[in-house]
Amino acid sequence: MSIVESKLESLGFVIPEAMQIPEGVKLPFPWVNVRGNRAFISGHGPQNPDGSLAGPFGKVGAEVTVEQAFELAKKTGLSILGSLKRELGDLDRIQGWGRVFGMVNSAPGFTQQPAVINGFTELIINVFGDEVGCHARSAVGMAELPFGNGIAVEIEGEVLLR
Amino acid sequence: MSIVESKLESLGFVIPEAMQIPEGVKLPFPWVNVRGNRAFISGHGPQNPDGSLAGPFGKVGAEVTVEQAFELAKKTGLSILGSLKRELGDLDRIQGWGRVFGMVNSAPGFTQQPAVINGFTELIINVFGDEVGCHARSAVGMAELPFGNGIAVEIEGEVLLR
Amino acid sequence: MSIVESKLESLGFVIPEAMQIPEGVKLPFPWVNVRGNRAFISGHGPQNPDGSLAGPFGKVGAEVTVEQAFELAKKTGLSILGSLKRELGDLDRIQGWGRVFGMVNSAPGFTQQPAVINGFTELIINVFGDEVGCHARSAVGMAELPFGNGIAVEIEGEVLLR
Repeated sequence: MSIVESKLESLGFVIPEAMQIPEGVKLPFPWVNVRGNRAFISGHGPQNPDGSLAGPFGKVGAEVTVEQAFELAKKTGLSILGSLKRELGDLDRIQGWGRVFGMVNSAPGFTQQPAVINGFTELIINVFGDEVGCHARSAVGMAELPFGNGIAVEIEGEVLLR
Repeated sequence: MSIVESKLESLGFVIPEAMQIPEGVKLPFPWVNVRGNRAFISGHGPQNPDGSLAGPFGKVGAEVTVEQAFELAKKTGLSILGSLKRELGDLDRIQGWGRVFGMVNSAPGFTQQPAVINGFTELIINVFGDEVGCHARSAVGMAELPFGNGIAVEIEGEVLLR
Repeated sequence: MSIVESKLESLGFVIPEAMQIPEGVKLPFPWVNVRGNRAFISGHGPQNPDGSLAGPFGKVGAEVTVEQAFELAKKTGLSILGSLKRELGDLDRIQGWGRVFGMVNSAPGFTQQPAVINGFTELIINVFGDEVGCHARSAVGMAELPFGNGIAVEIEGEVLLR
């Protein structure tokens, strides 16, 4: 078993199934696009273990609390790890994380985006360690995010492969 | 004639002239910045064939319909192909699309950003084919976009060169 | 003394101290993440010379004028140069700027994001020159940005190293 997946298991994390696309939605692009030793990660949202999108939905600071959004950012990390595993076969192929762009569906006046995206960053550092998991990051407030009433968190980025 | 441009022509698509910068606006950066085998694409908006910015302007979900915004995303793709052609000389130099960040000027409650940016993605896949055209993507809702009343769609990204 | 730092000094620019993280905020990521010859730059805000976040805070077009925001974008550039210098040791290691993503905390109806981010771009071109400093760019309007009442400008990007 790969080192990263053993670590995930020992921490009790479960990678969700591939995303269940909501009815009537077309997403004509891959979740991870590998070009040479670079893996570009499409914008992911939080998923339940069965691959369905995870709520609560809506704006952080209004319908969604910071604590809930922190958990949703962690779930978004697990969604991304699922897509990376399905594309790469083995998460140990990741040599290092590059950049992460963390988007928070933000109610007017909500400015704690970093505290939300920490749910993602702490997961990645826990699982990959400080050196491989280390990433440049932005955590910012979007006007709207896709799907139904709007996912609360969306994250995209890039990792480098061995 | 290059393969990609023949394809564009056979599909009836017309690459617009270089962007006409609105009066009083300074944009001190290139539309495409090539470094080694990477071409970084600046944020583009939809253009008319003469290079002027294309409307309707304003927020999708209010002043602009999803159908109109889909067409504007396609036009933004043609703007980008124009900039790439002028910078690279030949669109066949593109070995593969990497990442695309699709920004939709979104009215409150509008969450169909993916359906809008599909106008871009379908163009790129049609013109470059599944393998070269394939790209990681985000499609998200911005509070405001530049120029006048605000362009409805803006897209940036990166392609890899031969 | 490095060429870039001599230039900064001759232009009268002062690189601020490392960012003073506001109380109670955890930012578990580096300001610059180097992987091979790529340096990924995390989202930075404007800083005072002592490293504290610089105001005015809030939304450009409401609490913050375009002229103030232009200065804040320039200060954000100096924040980024500080992080790059601390990480790289010498700013002359920068072979070329790649991409820049300029985010403006935008009041409803404010669409002059490019005029704001020009404060950053003009600094970079002045200091690095046209060839090294040239970068692909987006300048767009965010719903909210982090910290207190919200920083007015945040910028992230990537530079390539020798």
